[in-house]
Amino acid sequence: MSKIIVIFSGGIDSTTVLYWSKKYFDEIYAITFDYGQKNKIEIDFAKIIAKKVGVKEHKIFKIDLSQIGGSALINKGIDIPKNRSIDEILGGGVAPTYVPLRNAIFITIASAWAETLGIENIAIGVHRIDTSGYPDTTPQFIESIENMLNTGSKMAVEGKKLKIYTPLIDLDKAGIIKLGLSLGADYSYSISCYAGNEIPCGKCDACILRKRAFKKLGLEDPLIVRLKKEGKI
Amino acid sequence: MSKIIVIFSGGIDSTTVLYWSKKYFDEIYAITFDYGQKNKIEIDFAKIIAKKVGVKEHKIFKIDLSQIGGSALINKGIDIPKNRSIDEILGGGVAPTYVPLRNAIFITIASAWAETLGIENIAIGVHRIDTSGYPDTTPQFIESIENMLNTGSKMAVEGKKLKIYTPLIDLDKAGIIKLGLSLGADYSYSISCYAGNEIPCGKCDACILRKRAFKKLGLEDPLIVRLKKEGKI
Repeated sequence: MSKIIVIFSGGIDSTTVLYWSKKYFDEIYAITFDYGQKNKIEIDFAKIIAKKVGVKEHKIFKIDLSQIGGSALINKGIDIPKNRSIDEILGGGVAPTYVPLRNAIFITIASAWAETLGIENIAIGVHRIDTSGYPDTTPQFIESIENMLNTGSKMAVEGKKLKIYTPLIDLDKAGIIKLGLSLGADYSYSISCYAGNEIPCGKCDACILRKRAFKKLGLEDPLIVRLKKEGKI
Repeated sequence: MSKIIVIFSGGIDSTTVLYWSKKYFDEIYAITFDYGQKNKIEIDFAKIIAKKVGVKEHKIFKIDLSQIGGSALINKGIDIPKNRSIDEILGGGVAPTYVPLRNAIFITIASAWAETLGIENIAIGVHRIDTSGYPDTTPQFIESIENMLNTGSKMAVEGKKLKIYTPLIDLDKAGIIKLGLSLGADYSYSISCYAGNEIPCGKCDACILRKRAFKKLGLEDPLIVRLKKEGKI
């Protein structure tokens, strides 16, 4: 029986990866990090999505990264950028929403869990297009961390090999949504907004990239459709 | 001004690295992980040592690794091995006290802190001799994680380069103590015992290796000397 752990925030990207994993693996484990993010609501919605997909176990791992600081996503003193142009978002260097080494920390913790479960596959929704200049979403980074994990783990000593899957790596946001919809993904509970409300702020980088992608596909965002139906907007 | 972050548990190894760093760097930052270890007392004693050495900042980072499990050091259901022979300790494969990917997690979090402080040097007390078969203490592992950190960080994008120092890598426990003593290290507050008391149990791998090392040097353990002086043993 094939098994995989999905690093799952509950956003568009990791929701797509969860549905992708469901197609290619028999048993899905999801890990969501409660790391002190301002958009804490995404954790509650991640639980709903994980249940819909039928994951075997959904671990909410607590690690307060505000102990380190250095990001607009977690630190009250640093503002989340608003109303940036697409050129600013995609070409403006590392955004203030970058959390120092977040993906490296998350992948390593997920791998520790994989080791205790005896699972050799991990999936993460990183992609190099349509990001706010994050350095920890590149194929080079994934290759280097896979190599590290296969050097310093008990798994490695036992001759097992951890594989990190990045099915979205070369897709833009519209391509990711298209893939997800083809796999039956339900995005009506997937939260992207950095601000921390169920109703998207519409102004942060994540909201802008999400809106642009649905517009490109000529679709209304299922989250907006749901919120309208529920009379919340 | 040269700065370094020391990954500092308060044991013999990391205490030695702290004194080593004091010799070669101008400003020392220490990070101690409160990760759910049974030997929690080592954190209180780490604070005493860090103060003695005069570190600029001592961060106690909380991350509960029992959320992952898989180790005798954190899980109540797994016993810490007792009274093993030296051959069993050094040649018996990965010990049950191995915490899945602990060093990878600690180094990555320390590097995230380094990034926010603008520090490019990290030191850790790993060594490949006199360990209970841990896979995350080898030069190959350190090289691979250094490479990962220099691939997926904001630092890397900015052209900075993180360097991980392992001054103990080729020393045995006696050699580590000898180095530390030559640097003026005070081991009377350094706790090694896995069991979690100020008074060493004398039976766990850590106690056995420590006793053996002081015996090899013909010295009485300064911790024992202090405990006797204080009438605790």
